[in-house]
This record gives sequence, C-alpha cells and structure tokens, in this order.
Amino acid sequence: MAEIAIKTERRTQFVDVTARVARLVKDAGIRSGICHLYVSHTTAGVMINEHDDPDVACDIEMAFDRLAPRDAGYRHAEGNADSHIKAALAGTAAAIFIADGQLDWGRWQGIFFCEFDGPRERRLQVKIVSDE
Amino acid sequence: MAEIAIKTERRTQFVDVTARVARLVKDAGIRSGICHLYVSHTTAGVMINEHDDPDVACDIEMAFDRLAPRDAGYRHAEGNADSHIKAALAGTAAAIFIADGQLDWGRWQGIFFCEFDGPRERRLQVKIVSDE
Amino acid sequence: MAEIAIKTERRTQFVDVTARVARLVKDAGIRSGICHLYVSHTTAGVMINEHDDPDVACDIEMAFDRLAPRDAGYRHAEGNADSHIKAALAGTAAAIFIADGQLDWGRWQGIFFCEFDGPRERRLQVKIVSDE
Repeated sequence: MAEIAIKTERRTQFVDVTARVARLVKDAGIRSGICHLYVSHTTAGVMINEHDDPDVACDIEMAFDRLAPRDAGYRHAEGNADSHIKAALAGTAAAIFIADGQLDWGRWQGIFFCEFDGPRERRLQVKIVSDE
Repeated sequence: MAEIAIKTERRTQFVDVTARVARLVKDAGIRSGICHLYVSHTTAGVMINEHDDPDVACDIEMAFDRLAPRDAGYRHAEGNADSHIKAALAGTAAAIFIADGQLDWGRWQGIFFCEFDGPRERRLQVKIVSDE
Repeated sequence: MAEIAIKTERRTQFVDVTARVARLVKDAGIRSGICHLYVSHTTAGVMINEHDDPDVACDIEMAFDRLAPRDAGYRHAEGNADSHIKAALAGTAAAIFIADGQLDWGRWQGIFFCEFDGPRERRLQVKIVSDE
C-alpha cells in the first residue's frame, strides 16, 4: 500500500494525479492485476475522466457545485454539507486494470483526486494487487 | 462471503452499518487485504461518508431526494423510478482497504446502507479478500 | 481479461450487457471470486440496476440528461462536456461477486453499459478474479 500526498488550493478542485499513480504501478513491477485507489476523507473523492483537455475537469467541478449548492438549508453545522454530498456522488474508490505492467485503460483517461472542501492537505491510498 | 441483514424504516434512509462490517473484518483474522461490499437490490446502494455527525447522512438523504424527485413523468409504472435513479447515483458497490487486521480508512468515515425505497428488509453482501 | 464490443445508437443509451457478462463468468469456470468491469472511455460508464423492466433504464437515462444539461456554459469546446459529467456520475467501474460459478447478485439486477456520447463503437473490459 502506497500513499500520494496532495495539497489542494481551492474549495472545489480536481487534481490530476495520473502520472503519480502510473509511476507507482510501474515501480510495482507486476505483469497483470488491479490498481485500487481509495480516498480516506469524507469531503473528497476520486474520479476517472478525460485529462487531455483540463477544461473537462473544470466543467465537472462546476457541475458538482451546481448539483449540490453550498447553501440549501442543511442540518450539518460545519458549513460543508455540500462537500459531503459531492463526495457521495463522486465516490471514495476507483479500480483500474493493469496489463503488461501498465494501467490498461483509455488513452484519454486520467485519475483525478476530487477536493470538495479545500484548501487542505490530502492523501490518496493506492493498493496494487497482482493476478499471480 | 458474509451478509448483513438490515431492516429499514423510511423510504429514503441511510443506515450506519460501520460497526457490523468492522466486526466481520476483525473476525476474518486476515492481516491485509480488501473488504468488498455489494448491494444486491436495485433501489438501494452503499456509501462511505462521515458517520460522526448523523446530520451529514440526513443532508445527503435530502440531497438525493432533490436530485431525483419522486414524480417527474417517469415511464416505470411501479412508482419508484426515483429510487432506481438514486441507486444509480449512489452505486451498488464499495471497497475499503484492510491493514493490520482492520479497516484502513479515515477516522471520520463510516459505511452506510442507502435505502431508497423503504421500509424493507434488505441485505448487504461482504466479501473479505486477503492479500496473501 | 476479456472485452465486450458494443455498438450504440443514441447519444444517451444504456445497453443491457448482462447476458454477455454472465456468459464470460460461466466460461471462466471458477467457483468463487469477483467479476470486475471497467469502461475505458471518458464519455461512458457502467451501472448495475434493474433490467427486468426496460423502462427503468429509460427513466435513468432521462434523469442523467436532466442532471447534466447539454448546454450550460461549459468551457470544453467539443460540445460533449455534459457527456463527461454524466460519466463522472455513473462511474467507470463495477464489481460483482461470483459464487457457485455464477454472478451472486439480485434477481432483478442487470449490467448496463452507459453511453453518454453516442452513437459510437465501444468496449467494456471484464476481468474475472478467482478467490483461490
């Protein structure tokens, strides 16, 4: 199990961690298996989506902010109920297949750590499981 | 593979099953691995989020009810199309890492069975896979 | 690792691939394990939900189209920002338990490939991992 440390700078911010996860997979030296990702925070998530055009992540950030408005008569007193809702929609885990020692996915796909209550210091857990 | 039986009492209700899953992980007696959760219903889901303040789950319940209104000109004739939509947004599966014989996650995180068409008798499937 | 080829015909279309995945699981000849599904596209996803009444999938298609409207002042210049948002909400992966050589899930559950930017030629990756 490895961890990637992330420093976010905005309240809602999708951070591209593709290169860092790909490096961990390469260093693991396994032939085939699954790369499991887990976010141990309750106001953040993880997402696989296009990372070629950074505008896509911006559009999805805005979409999440629209789906869960910051103020909507929430009960939770800490002022970040919307962040918890966005984390519920994004999800805390992802899994990508590994083949030939690399992530076996789409050429446009990237991994984003989804900050919904930044800025903060965060971490993404990575667990690489070999088929053999 | 183990199963957790759940009796829900409201139409939309997030039931905290953290202690029951944590007990299954402890009883499994494995050192490291992954705890996989699966919901075998089509109008329910599973979510990892804060369980320290129960208001958070209430706010997320309300958010899901807003995102998929009960009546919106649906085709499905059983009157629970919104429940299926909420299940699609929540997802039917979750996975949490295990280290040192325990769930290796955030201190505020909990596991919620997400009822979207209660009250009903439900079940959550739990499969604990060891790394060794 | 196997792949299922899918030809979609509408912009937003949930394609029922249950029988094809079930066949792969049966052919794998394993007793118990996990069937992992992965979508290697950035404008598509995968979902487990009711497939007995096809109206349910239609209702969920419409709900996703409402949650992410086609035009909403997006930055991404390709005209399919909404497709990326829907893929983020649906998710790119799913996992179902296998027991007694078959998918061990609910009797009403089915697997849908979720097209959000069709019509296109797509593929769904399937990886079957045995417990033994």
